[in-house]
Amino acid sequence: MFYSTQSIVIHSIMIKVLVNGFGTIGKRVAEAVQKQEDMRLYGISDVSKGPEMETLLSPKGELHKVDVYASNKEGAEKLRKDNVDIKGTIEEHSDEIDIVVDSTPSGVDKSNKENIYKPNNLKAVFQGGAPDDIAEVKFNADANYQEANGENYVKVVSCNTTSLSRTMNTLEENFGVDEVVANLVRRGGDIPQDGRGPINSIIPVTDVPSHHGPDVKAVMPELDIKTLAVKVPVTYGHVHMVNAELEQDVNEEEIIEAFEKNPRINLLEAEKGFDSTSKVHEMMRDLGRKRSDMQETGVWKETITVEDGTCYWIHMVHQEPIVTPDTIDALSSLLEVERQPRSRDKTNTA
Amino acid sequence: MFYSTQSIVIHSIMIKVLVNGFGTIGKRVAEAVQKQEDMRLYGISDVSKGPEMETLLSPKGELHKVDVYASNKEGAEKLRKDNVDIKGTIEEHSDEIDIVVDSTPSGVDKSNKENIYKPNNLKAVFQGGAPDDIAEVKFNADANYQEANGENYVKVVSCNTTSLSRTMNTLEENFGVDEVVANLVRRGGDIPQDGRGPINSIIPVTDVPSHHGPDVKAVMPELDIKTLAVKVPVTYGHVHMVNAELEQDVNEEEIIEAFEKNPRINLLEAEKGFDSTSKVHEMMRDLGRKRSDMQETGVWKETITVEDGTCYWIHMVHQEPIVTPDTIDALSSLLEVERQPRSRDKTNTA
Repeated sequence: MFYSTQSIVIHSIMIKVLVNGFGTIGKRVAEAVQKQEDMRLYGISDVSKGPEMETLLSPKGELHKVDVYASNKEGAEKLRKDNVDIKGTIEEHSDEIDIVVDSTPSGVDKSNKENIYKPNNLKAVFQGGAPDDIAEVKFNADANYQEANGENYVKVVSCNTTSLSRTMNTLEENFGVDEVVANLVRRGGDIPQDGRGPINSIIPVTDVPSHHGPDVKAVMPELDIKTLAVKVPVTYGHVHMVNAELEQDVNEEEIIEAFEKNPRINLLEAEKGFDSTSKVHEMMRDLGRKRSDMQETGVWKETITVEDGTCYWIHMVHQEPIVTPDTIDALSSLLEVERQPRSRDKTNTA
Repeated sequence: MFYSTQSIVIHSIMIKVLVNGFGTIGKRVAEAVQKQEDMRLYGISDVSKGPEMETLLSPKGELHKVDVYASNKEGAEKLRKDNVDIKGTIEEHSDEIDIVVDSTPSGVDKSNKENIYKPNNLKAVFQGGAPDDIAEVKFNADANYQEANGENYVKVVSCNTTSLSRTMNTLEENFGVDEVVANLVRRGGDIPQDGRGPINSIIPVTDVPSHHGPDVKAVMPELDIKTLAVKVPVTYGHVHMVNAELEQDVNEEEIIEAFEKNPRINLLEAEKGFDSTSKVHEMMRDLGRKRSDMQETGVWKETITVEDGTCYWIHMVHQEPIVTPDTIDALSSLLEVERQPRSRDKTNTA
């Protein structure tokens, strides 16, 4: 009896999450939601069936027992034609959903907000590709977790911005940051994006300074940060070269210690052979991480240098999974659910 | 009679140049020397015959009439075995040579200086790969042309440093430069260096800040410049992201104008379709430039931005030919030959 009562109590605080848009971010967030003790993956939704849905809903896929919904009526028709057994549309089930993670393509997210979430009183977490005006609050779990409390909509900042916010916030909290110059070397595309380039070319972002600086300021308004960016022919990881003027006199050991204490920062040791993005990729493969994902920001330990009051380092960002833990955090922040701090990290990096 | 006298006068000021080390830089410098009105390519020398010598000494090669020497006795044996018709060693002909361009591999240059040039009173111009102590004066034609006057040895700074020195000196002369942060995205290898990487990876230079800052300071000692660097999978061109604090309040037009006036800086227009290193490569191919070389530093015009007193831009450096004009200038500076300023640019970029 006691057991059953307790089970009811637990059930009553389970957050029912719908993941709308089943791509690079959606599939990772859906799997992560399934692993949270206080969340239930209500379902996934989309407007068509792609190769990722094909794999993950197949009997060998991690999500093969998950209910599938259509984002809208047109989507329902398409999905049925593709022989996907859907349970209905988001609208038809909106009363049973506590919150939506919207990981649909840029542009679609905005129309979803106006046509689905708003009329049906659904809270939603949007992703970095969404237009800035989609939500008043931009979100990074390290920098401004509390700010999303009770909001209806929030936008998790992009992968590059997430990695910068994590490292900057760590330094800001520990030593204070005066001024930052960060120059970004971005991957051309993800592994399956084989229609993208460049091949054997470097593409400058001619919008100077780049949008990444203001994006970080969206979650750390006091920070003075300027960024430039280029795109290069790699598929695993962006790399950032950072110069930061700190408010306090600190040495390298103190900075390493501060980074080490942040569970979402990985200190990479070039000396031990992890001296490139592809060596780190292989480390993740050897660790058996699903999809060889690295959710943490990877800072090369040897590059952390303090000289004449300036702190330098180089870090990498695995662009595909890095926002997964922050998206999970955004869900609990919007719903004001009390959680053990950092408890989600165990799930996401295990 | 008059004609013949004049011809003797001209001949008497012809600088006889030997190019020792026939690789990426050597072959370009040899061809450039041939095009100078006041220089004569005395010959080229090496210790073995590689594919480049094979091509360029063949009947269709630009250097097929050039005399070949051996760098030393062992080299002479090897070259003769390879059926190269050599005229002797450098030592045997040192009296007839005015100056040597040493473009041999790093390490070999140092031993050449001690064992060949010094004992035979030969002046020499070394390249960026040579150890720093090989010559007291480091050289960039824009930044410190006069400093090499009358020296016996000089080291032309590397391709990355040359491009930084050109742009920095242009700004320093026009507006004054306070402080610079430049982050470098380096090519993995040149087109024929197919044994090099990376493939699909970004490699951070873990020596932080990188040596490029101090290298620029070798020709511009007053400049406060800090650099970081990574290596990426491309073969044509390094790219630099630059933040410079200027001493004067200037606007973007003034900076563009200053860059435009430097014949060794190319303003690239992304808007016109030259929005990546490979599009610029294609421009050089379409212009019929030999080896599709770009000797100029290419600054993307649209990236030149001034905001809150900071000047930003992104430039590219074709790593193989950029030091050719500076090497030619180093020759005339060492020998204190008076030349029309910039006359060599006509030759090098024509």
